[in-house]
Amino acid sequence: MNTFGHFFRVTTWGESHGKAVGCIIDGCPAGLEIDEDFVQKEMDRRRPGGEFSSKRKEIDKVEILSGVLNGITLGTPISMIIWNVDVDPRPYEELKTIPRPGHADWTYYAKFGIRDWRGGGRASARETVARVSAGAIAKLILRKYGIKVFGYAKEIGGVEFHVENAEKAFEIAEKSPIRCPDPKKEKEAEDLIKKVMVEGDSVGGIVEIVAQNVPAGLGEPVFGKISAYLAYALMSIPSVKGFEIGKGFEVSKLKGSENNDQIILKNGKIRFATNNAGGILGGITNGEDIVMRIAVKPTPSIAKKQKSVDYEKMGEVEISVKGRHDPCIVPRIVPVAEAMVSLVLVDCMLLQGLIPRSFTGRT
Amino acid sequence: MNTFGHFFRVTTWGESHGKAVGCIIDGCPAGLEIDEDFVQKEMDRRRPGGEFSSKRKEIDKVEILSGVLNGITLGTPISMIIWNVDVDPRPYEELKTIPRPGHADWTYYAKFGIRDWRGGGRASARETVARVSAGAIAKLILRKYGIKVFGYAKEIGGVEFHVENAEKAFEIAEKSPIRCPDPKKEKEAEDLIKKVMVEGDSVGGIVEIVAQNVPAGLGEPVFGKISAYLAYALMSIPSVKGFEIGKGFEVSKLKGSENNDQIILKNGKIRFATNNAGGILGGITNGEDIVMRIAVKPTPSIAKKQKSVDYEKMGEVEISVKGRHDPCIVPRIVPVAEAMVSLVLVDCMLLQGLIPRSFTGRT
Amino acid sequence: MNTFGHFFRVTTWGESHGKAVGCIIDGCPAGLEIDEDFVQKEMDRRRPGGEFSSKRKEIDKVEILSGVLNGITLGTPISMIIWNVDVDPRPYEELKTIPRPGHADWTYYAKFGIRDWRGGGRASARETVARVSAGAIAKLILRKYGIKVFGYAKEIGGVEFHVENAEKAFEIAEKSPIRCPDPKKEKEAEDLIKKVMVEGDSVGGIVEIVAQNVPAGLGEPVFGKISAYLAYALMSIPSVKGFEIGKGFEVSKLKGSENNDQIILKNGKIRFATNNAGGILGGITNGEDIVMRIAVKPTPSIAKKQKSVDYEKMGEVEISVKGRHDPCIVPRIVPVAEAMVSLVLVDCMLLQGLIPRSFTGRT
Amino acid sequence: MNTFGHFFRVTTWGESHGKAVGCIIDGCPAGLEIDEDFVQKEMDRRRPGGEFSSKRKEIDKVEILSGVLNGITLGTPISMIIWNVDVDPRPYEELKTIPRPGHADWTYYAKFGIRDWRGGGRASARETVARVSAGAIAKLILRKYGIKVFGYAKEIGGVEFHVENAEKAFEIAEKSPIRCPDPKKEKEAEDLIKKVMVEGDSVGGIVEIVAQNVPAGLGEPVFGKISAYLAYALMSIPSVKGFEIGKGFEVSKLKGSENNDQIILKNGKIRFATNNAGGILGGITNGEDIVMRIAVKPTPSIAKKQKSVDYEKMGEVEISVKGRHDPCIVPRIVPVAEAMVSLVLVDCMLLQGLIPRSFTGRT
Repeated sequence: MNTFGHFFRVTTWGESHGKAVGCIIDGCPAGLEIDEDFVQKEMDRRRPGGEFSSKRKEIDKVEILSGVLNGITLGTPISMIIWNVDVDPRPYEELKTIPRPGHADWTYYAKFGIRDWRGGGRASARETVARVSAGAIAKLILRKYGIKVFGYAKEIGGVEFHVENAEKAFEIAEKSPIRCPDPKKEKEAEDLIKKVMVEGDSVGGIVEIVAQNVPAGLGEPVFGKISAYLAYALMSIPSVKGFEIGKGFEVSKLKGSENNDQIILKNGKIRFATNNAGGILGGITNGEDIVMRIAVKPTPSIAKKQKSVDYEKMGEVEISVKGRHDPCIVPRIVPVAEAMVSLVLVDCMLLQGLIPRSFTGRT
Repeated sequence: MNTFGHFFRVTTWGESHGKAVGCIIDGCPAGLEIDEDFVQKEMDRRRPGGEFSSKRKEIDKVEILSGVLNGITLGTPISMIIWNVDVDPRPYEELKTIPRPGHADWTYYAKFGIRDWRGGGRASARETVARVSAGAIAKLILRKYGIKVFGYAKEIGGVEFHVENAEKAFEIAEKSPIRCPDPKKEKEAEDLIKKVMVEGDSVGGIVEIVAQNVPAGLGEPVFGKISAYLAYALMSIPSVKGFEIGKGFEVSKLKGSENNDQIILKNGKIRFATNNAGGILGGITNGEDIVMRIAVKPTPSIAKKQKSVDYEKMGEVEISVKGRHDPCIVPRIVPVAEAMVSLVLVDCMLLQGLIPRSFTGRT
Repeated sequence: MNTFGHFFRVTTWGESHGKAVGCIIDGCPAGLEIDEDFVQKEMDRRRPGGEFSSKRKEIDKVEILSGVLNGITLGTPISMIIWNVDVDPRPYEELKTIPRPGHADWTYYAKFGIRDWRGGGRASARETVARVSAGAIAKLILRKYGIKVFGYAKEIGGVEFHVENAEKAFEIAEKSPIRCPDPKKEKEAEDLIKKVMVEGDSVGGIVEIVAQNVPAGLGEPVFGKISAYLAYALMSIPSVKGFEIGKGFEVSKLKGSENNDQIILKNGKIRFATNNAGGILGGITNGEDIVMRIAVKPTPSIAKKQKSVDYEKMGEVEISVKGRHDPCIVPRIVPVAEAMVSLVLVDCMLLQGLIPRSFTGRT
Repeated sequence: MNTFGHFFRVTTWGESHGKAVGCIIDGCPAGLEIDEDFVQKEMDRRRPGGEFSSKRKEIDKVEILSGVLNGITLGTPISMIIWNVDVDPRPYEELKTIPRPGHADWTYYAKFGIRDWRGGGRASARETVARVSAGAIAKLILRKYGIKVFGYAKEIGGVEFHVENAEKAFEIAEKSPIRCPDPKKEKEAEDLIKKVMVEGDSVGGIVEIVAQNVPAGLGEPVFGKISAYLAYALMSIPSVKGFEIGKGFEVSKLKGSENNDQIILKNGKIRFATNNAGGILGGITNGEDIVMRIAVKPTPSIAKKQKSVDYEKMGEVEISVKGRHDPCIVPRIVPVAEAMVSLVLVDCMLLQGLIPRSFTGRT
C-alpha cells in the first residue's frame, strides 16, 4: 500500500523525523538517460522556502543508490534516498499522546495501536519528497514523447484565479511565491495568507493540473479508467479532499447538449470542438488536454487553541500546535500533484505498449 | 483492469447487447448466508423502469453459478450471471463508424482499433448491473457489522436538494422516482427532467453517499488511503466527473480553525465535534460517518442534432442518437455508487483483519 | 487467488458437481481471431474418454459469452462457460464428513470451516477444464509468433520413456491413449495401469513440457524469473509435487564445466552449444527451447480400503473411494500443463512489450 | 517484479558492485519488537567466509532507516540498507561485452539492451543479502507462533546426506562449514569441493528446507496453492533448477495406496500417519511439517576455459572467469531458502487472518 503503479511501480518509505525518506522505482525502462539536474530542480520546486512556507531547512538532495550505471538506467530498481537533515521532533513531544485535530494522529493510532509522534511520522507531507523524486524520473520519460504535465494554484482561501491559457498560467505561477497564475489577484491572496499567519491560522485552496500532448487510448475499461486512476493518485496526496476532471462538479448544471464535446475534423484528424470532458471519455484519453482540479484543505497545524483528548489519560485538553508549518500548502502541493499525474501517465503508456522496456536499440 | 479490489476481488464481464453480463467475486469469506431476495432487491433498485428512465426492459435476474452450496458461501469464487433479455442493437447500426459525442466510442476505437458498436458495448451503463450484484454480497457482509451504506440525489440539473439527516433523506429518496430526498424540490426537478426529455436533451446532477458505523482504522497509509480508494471506486462509474469527501471543494474557502474537527470525549470515547473531514483523516477512517459526493454528467445520448465524424469515410456528419436512454442517470447511479462504496469497505475491513476468512466456527 | 497472470489474467470459477465451470480472460489483445474449432480441440484433448480414464461423460463444449464480436476479440473480458452435464454427487454423500486420504477434503475444511463434498468441489481436477479453455486462447496468440508449447508423458509408474526429439515425441504421444512418446515402452506402461485398475489402485508419473521458438529476454529479474513463474504455474495444477527445468535435479551431480552451456555463434547469432539450462538463465529466456518436467502423484481416489476420520463424530473409519476416477492422471494433465505454460508465455511477452494491445492496424 | 508477497511485501534493490543493496518491507504488522541481534545473526549465516566460500569480505551490517521507532515496528515500510563495502569490479572489465556461460549476462542484455557488467549486477547472488534481511523479520513474526523454518544440504556434488530427524540435522549442519547434516559423509563432500576448487571447477547439490508447527489451512485454492507459492519463492533464488515437495519426483514410482497419507486421530486431533504429501494437500497446509527440496546448480563462475562470444565484435572467444566465487553455493543458499519460505508463511498467515495488523493491544 506504500506502492503506487502497476508497471512503473513506486514504493516510498520514511518518516518525517526519521533518518531519511526515499523510494524505489521498479519497472523503469532501461536505457533512459537520467538528467540529475532536472531531478534536483523538481525537488527544489517542492522544497520549503520563502515567507509563505515552513521554516524547516532541508536541502533535499537526491542520492541514487541503484539501477543507474554511468547515468543510464539498467532496467533494475532505482533506489533513491533523501536524508532528513533538519530534524527536530522536540515541539511534538508534549503531544505524544494527544492527537492534533485535522491530522492523522488519531487514525494511525486507531489503526496500528502505535504511532510515530515525531511530526506525524509517515503521514507528514515530508513523505511527498519521495513522490517528487519518482515523478521527476517519470517526467524524463514523458518528455521523450512531448508530454507536459504542469500545475498552478487555481484558488487560495476563496480568492479565485483567472486562467486563460494553461501554459502561460504555469509560466507566471512558477515565478509567484504562492504559485498564483493571475497577477491581478496575487496580492489579495498573499495578503490573506499573511493575515492568517498572524492569526495563527491557515487557508486552503484549489490546484489545477494539466497534461498536454497525451495520446488517445490511455486508460483501461471499467475499473481501470484513467480518470479513476488520476483521482486515486491525487486523492492520495495529504490534505486533498476533492477531485474533478474537465467541467467536474459543474456538469450538474449542464444539459447533455451543452456538455457533450462535438466531434470534428481538425487538420484531417478526429478532434473535439470543446474540452468539457477534460480529455477523457469512458475513462480513456481522447487526445485533448487532461484538465483536473483538486481541493486542498487548510493546513491542520495551527497555533490557535484547539480541543483534543489525551488518549492515555482519557481527558479533554486544549492545545496549540507548534513546529514549522505552511500557512497554506497549496503552492507546495503543485509539484507533488504533477508528480502523481506523471506517474499515472507513464504507467498507462507502458500498459498500452507505447513505451518500450528499453530505450536502447536492442529490444 | 476489469477486476476491482485487493482481497474481495470482483471481476466483471459482458457487453450491453451481448449474451449476458456477470461477475466473479473472489475472496468472499466462507460461511456467509446468501439472502437471494436481498440481492434481487438491490438489482431492482438499479433496474430501468418508470417514466424518468430508459425503456429497455430487463428483469435482471441474478443466477449464481458457483461458490455457494445450500445458500452458504464456500470461500470459492462466486460466479453470477445476468442474461441480457431485451437486446436490440438495431438503432446503433447506422452509427457503426460514427462515434457519439460524450461517449466512449471514439476512445475505445483509439485504444483497441475495434469497438463493439452495439450500444456502447462494454462502456455502456449496462455493465453496472454486475457491480450491483457484487455490491449486494458486500452489503450482506457489512450488515453483519451494522455498517450501512446508502445514497440519494443531492442535486439534479442545478436544483439542489436540502438534507438534514442522511438516514431520513435516504428513506424519502427511496420512495421518489428520481431519488430526491427533498420533497419541497422534487417537483421542480421532475419538471426539469420532463422538459429536457421533450427537448431531446438530458441533465446531470450530484449524488451523495453515506457510510455509517464504519470502524476507525480502515484504509492504508500513503497510496492506499481509503479516501483515494473511494475516489477510485466512484470515479470508475460511467459518467462520474468529480468526487469529494466531507467538505470537499468547500475547504478552499475555509480556515484551518474552521475546518479542523475538534477532538472530544463522547460517552468515554474519542470522537469529533463536527465531521468536516467526512470520516477520514490521513486516509484512515476516524469512526465518524463517511460522507461523499460525486458529480454525474448529463446522459450523453440525446436526440438533439450533434456533430461527429465518420471515421471510415473521414467526413463530418450530423447525428441524432436513438436507442433507449435515461434523460437523467442520477437516480439509477445511486445503487451503483452504494455498491462501489460497499466493495471498498469490505475490502478494507478484510485488509485490516476485521472480517474472518470464514464465518463458521472452525477457522 | 483464483486469478492467474499479471497482464493476461485468467480467473476461473466453478465446482466439480456444480452447474458449470468457466473462466474470464482479462487483458487479451483486441483484434485476435478466435478459432473456435481449435479451442474445442484443445478441450477434447483433456476430456475423459478411453479405457484408461474416468468414465464421467462431459462434452466440454465451450460457450463464449463476451469479449468477442463476429469471431474477433474486442479487448474486453472474454467470459467462457462450460456447463457440467454428467453431474452425479451421490457416490460422495457417504463421505460428507470423512476426508479422503490424498485429497484436499480435510485442508479445505480446515481453511474454510465448510467444504463442497460433491467430488472435491473446487479442488477437483474438473477445475482444469477452465484452464485449458484459457490456454487455448493463449496458444492462438503464441501461434502468431511461431511459438509452440507441447507435452507428453515422460514416465508412468516408474516406467521411463525415451525421447530423442521433442516434436516427434509429441506427435507419437498424441496418438497414444496414455500420451506415451516411446512405442517400445507403451505396452509396459499400459499393462501397469490396467493392473493397478484391477487392484483398485493408481499410479503417478512425470510429464515433460517443451516450449519452442521462445524469444530471448522473457522473464523479469529477481522475483519475476520466468523459471519461478513456470514453477508457480505448473505447481498450481492438482497432483503436481515437483518441478524442474533443464537438467533439473540432475545438476546436483554435475560440475560447473559440465553444466554450463557454452556460448557460440550459429548462423551469425548468439546461441548455446547445449541446453542444460532448459532455455533460461538468471530467470530470463535465452532463446533455446524451454524444457520442463513435473512430478504427478498417483490419483488419490482409489477403491482400496483406506483409513480416515469422521470429523463430526471424531472417530476413525475405513473407506473405499467410489466415483469415476482416472487410474493415472498423467495423460490428461498434459494439455493442462501446456495451457499453464502458454499462459505464462503470453503474459511474459505482453510484459516485455512483444505483443501489442491490439492486432488490428490502429494502435 | 522486484517485489515479493501479497500482504507482507518485500521489494529488493541494488547491484552487486553498486553502492548498496537493500529492501523495503511493506505490510509488516505494527508493534513487533525488532531483535536486531537476531537479524544480524541471520545475515552472518549467509555471509561469505571460511575456506569453502567466496573471498569477498562484506560485513553485511543491516541499517534500518524507517518503520521502526525505539525498536518497535510502526506498521509503515521498513527500509533496510546494507552498504557494499568490498566492491571490486576490475576482474569483470575484460568481460564487458562477453557473456559468461551459465550466467545471466546474455539474457539481461537480450532483455534490456544494456547490462551491469560489474559482477552480474542485479543478477548476482549478492542480491540475496536483502532477502535474508527481510526473511529475518519474517522469522521474528513466525517465532511468536512457534513456527520454525530451517534447512541444510541434502546432497553435494552427488554425495547424498542421510537425515533421520530434521531438527537434529539442522543443528549438526549449522556447525558444518558446508552445512552437511551427515557427519559420516561430510569429509567426502568437503574433499570433493576442495578437488573441484583446484581444478578451477565447481559443484552443485540439493538443499532441504523444513517448516514445523505450521497451522493447517494456509494457502489459497487453485492458483494460490501454497505449494505453488513456495515453488515460486524458491525457484526465484539464483541457481535453483528444481523444486519438490514431500515425496516429490519419487511419486512417479509410487501407487496411490503407497503415497496417500492415511488420516488418523492423534491426541484427539486429525493428523496423518505418514507425511508423503510434505504437509500440503490441494495446495493447503494440513498441519504436518512442510518438507521441500531444491536443486542447486554448480556455480557457473569457473576458472576453467570456456567458450563465449563477444557480442560487440560478434566473434567467438575463450574465457576464464575471475573474481571471487564459491566453488559450491549450496551451504550459503540455505539461509536464503529459509528466508524465502519464511516470507511465504508470513504472507499466507496474514492472508488467512492468523496474524493481526498490530501486535499491540489496540486493534
